[in-house]
Amino acid sequence: MSAGSDVVGLLRAALVDRVDTSERALQDARADKSGHAAAGTPLAVVHAASVEDVQHTLRIATSTGTPVVTRGAGTGLAGGANAGAGEIALSVRGMQRILEVRPDDLLAVVEPGILNADLNDALAEHGLWWAPDPASRAISTVGGNIATGAGGLLCAKYGVVRDAVLGVDLVLADGRLLRLGHRTVKGVTGLDLTSLVIGSEGTLGVVVGATLKLRRLIPGEVCTLAATFPTVRTAAEASAAVTASGAQPAIMELMDAACLAAVHALLDLAPPTPGAAQLTIQTDGPAAAAEAELIASTLRAVGGTVTVSADREEGERLLAIRRSMHPAMETLGTTLIEDVSVPRSALPAMFDEIARVEREHGIVIPTVAHAGDGNLHPNFIFDAVPNEAGIVEVPDAIWDAADDMFRAALRLGGTLTGEHGVGVLKRRWLADELGDDQWELQRQITGVFDPQGILNPGKVFAR
Amino acid sequence: MSAGSDVVGLLRAALVDRVDTSERALQDARADKSGHAAAGTPLAVVHAASVEDVQHTLRIATSTGTPVVTRGAGTGLAGGANAGAGEIALSVRGMQRILEVRPDDLLAVVEPGILNADLNDALAEHGLWWAPDPASRAISTVGGNIATGAGGLLCAKYGVVRDAVLGVDLVLADGRLLRLGHRTVKGVTGLDLTSLVIGSEGTLGVVVGATLKLRRLIPGEVCTLAATFPTVRTAAEASAAVTASGAQPAIMELMDAACLAAVHALLDLAPPTPGAAQLTIQTDGPAAAAEAELIASTLRAVGGTVTVSADREEGERLLAIRRSMHPAMETLGTTLIEDVSVPRSALPAMFDEIARVEREHGIVIPTVAHAGDGNLHPNFIFDAVPNEAGIVEVPDAIWDAADDMFRAALRLGGTLTGEHGVGVLKRRWLADELGDDQWELQRQITGVFDPQGILNPGKVFAR
Repeated sequence: MSAGSDVVGLLRAALVDRVDTSERALQDARADKSGHAAAGTPLAVVHAASVEDVQHTLRIATSTGTPVVTRGAGTGLAGGANAGAGEIALSVRGMQRILEVRPDDLLAVVEPGILNADLNDALAEHGLWWAPDPASRAISTVGGNIATGAGGLLCAKYGVVRDAVLGVDLVLADGRLLRLGHRTVKGVTGLDLTSLVIGSEGTLGVVVGATLKLRRLIPGEVCTLAATFPTVRTAAEASAAVTASGAQPAIMELMDAACLAAVHALLDLAPPTPGAAQLTIQTDGPAAAAEAELIASTLRAVGGTVTVSADREEGERLLAIRRSMHPAMETLGTTLIEDVSVPRSALPAMFDEIARVEREHGIVIPTVAHAGDGNLHPNFIFDAVPNEAGIVEVPDAIWDAADDMFRAALRLGGTLTGEHGVGVLKRRWLADELGDDQWELQRQITGVFDPQGILNPGKVFAR
Repeated sequence: MSAGSDVVGLLRAALVDRVDTSERALQDARADKSGHAAAGTPLAVVHAASVEDVQHTLRIATSTGTPVVTRGAGTGLAGGANAGAGEIALSVRGMQRILEVRPDDLLAVVEPGILNADLNDALAEHGLWWAPDPASRAISTVGGNIATGAGGLLCAKYGVVRDAVLGVDLVLADGRLLRLGHRTVKGVTGLDLTSLVIGSEGTLGVVVGATLKLRRLIPGEVCTLAATFPTVRTAAEASAAVTASGAQPAIMELMDAACLAAVHALLDLAPPTPGAAQLTIQTDGPAAAAEAELIASTLRAVGGTVTVSADREEGERLLAIRRSMHPAMETLGTTLIEDVSVPRSALPAMFDEIARVEREHGIVIPTVAHAGDGNLHPNFIFDAVPNEAGIVEVPDAIWDAADDMFRAALRLGGTLTGEHGVGVLKRRWLADELGDDQWELQRQITGVFDPQGILNPGKVFAR
């Protein structure tokens, strides 16, 4: 009996039918939505239904020294939840209960596997919402949002995941359960381990519960602006001017000409003006109309052609163009979706750098940006050529171009990843941003949580 | 030559006149504003003027195994910055430059010793502010606010320190400088060490710089409400009703009858109605007036006598009553200022518990609360009796009562400290809240930053 079959036997003895070794489950667990897949297939997929299931799995993993890759809905974009040969894929997707909603305390306690959109549908009945809104909100889990420190469209006004989580319940590598954080607005008892877990991509433990900080639904109207500019640089300058003006849009999205053309083609819309880039902006709250007017004049002053609508349906139609980005990119070829973030004033310069990378490397990089917070998603398009194992790998020439772009973002005071995480795809650049001393310190901290190194090995802190 | 004089000699050789061994400096470094003082006096006070000064000091501390206590303005309330026998007191109060203000990126880069109020005065010229507003803002430093994870009056609406810091520069125990965090709205490259440092009370390193997330000054009017209630419990119920109503005050402060009486006496105001408690509430932003009206009707519906004013000066006068709390308490005796936090719905129950502790322990505990966020400051009053060393210690009977109250707060889903920190005064209850497993894990994390254990030993993680 091999070591692997021994582990599966122990899992089956403890977890019975929650242990899945069907070929389909094993294949699914190899990949997320990054396009990257792990080499080989995991030993088994454990469909955890309870905290105890997670604890059992980790005790077996610790006693046998078996790596564990925690998964939610598998919608990640950096390969962080991909499970390969010799590993246990631990799915918490089935743990999806809302345990508590407290409108009076503006908090909810949930299990990690609930979809962001499902949670928000349930909260809306109480007049509440959880602000983090990754573009994947319809298909990604709250636990995955926490594990990656997910962002979204609303972050400049309504914050990131770190601002919206009060506490997490964490199962350590050895199966012990810790309750981190608190249920109160304020709390400084000891170190802030809740924040440390947010964005830790499965390297510190398994999030089995979360106490979320909620907001009340924003009353009042929503205004949506669409503005076109002759070049992507002028659109970027316009978005920086909006931020500098003091207006605070809820959403400010930028699409370059290549993105617009692909989306218009996908949605059967009239072709956009060649070369033109677009800003789609939404204001909300009691000052929505006044802010929309202020923003419209800022945009016109820098050469934008602007329409403003207070009609919610028209606003949704305009945002649907932005939301169709990912399927539109898939029509162009295989895509490496990148995720750099820069200070907002550096957005025009970052678009210049992307244009330079396109020129110097002879590739196209259609780019969309959460311009309100300086987070860009350059899409590196390439022709997929499966390798001998049938896996599509990103070609070296594309990585060279991405490397060039990462370094440009760092030079501009930016960061490698605004919201997707490091996973496997960006691990080789991690030390470039952190520095060797901080990289080593962070790796040692993971060792405090996971002395054997069985939690998501090869991700984030592997060079 | 003793080991201590050897350390001082090394410090003098490296730092010359920044090394202060005057009796006055050594005595000042023993205490903060908690009323607690360290036993003995430190070896020396180093008045660091630069990052290099801090690095020199820590290299000497590491090479000689000497403990280092970092200090700002010494306004802490938990004894966290008190330096005693055999220790180096490292003051960063002199490092107070604003290195950069970027209105376009809504950030500032500052040194740690700048006073919160001085920073905000400078930012106001740019139409900006840094939201954390501890009651000590006129006398406490930004570095101290970060080290303690300070709170304040505005936290329910405008967040805590964790929400307002993008990055910190940290000198480790061995003198290495790390740059943690980023200058961007979003950033998930590796673990969030910035959040880990916030509230770590000098146990992980020395904060020598901070990149702060700023807000624009809030336009529009400010409305102030004052409401009196027959009992503190009805006032607490009213504040919970305001939160539950969906209104979002910028400030909502509660003072019980004993606090009101002491402040009115101090300020020569007419005595308040015996037994009555007061809520002081402020609304701001474009919906200030509408929210004030909504809040006023909520307060009246639960029995409050309410006045509303849109006059800024009248609002300041009403808030001045709240801001005179600390001097007013000093007129009653020596005070142990506590800092528990509970979910907002539990505020009435927490006031019941405080009344019970008063009854059962035969003491008075005048209490003020940041009712908008559930953070209470019960003031345990006692007669100061200096011990043989001339130091006033909190009597055991007072600690017994505080212990009773801490356990009540934890039972209600609360936390030991909302904004003051653990320091020396609450370290013996830390494991009660964290649990032994988490306590030990947190202590091990401090060991990654500080393997020799020379950073603020005896604070936070000492039982």
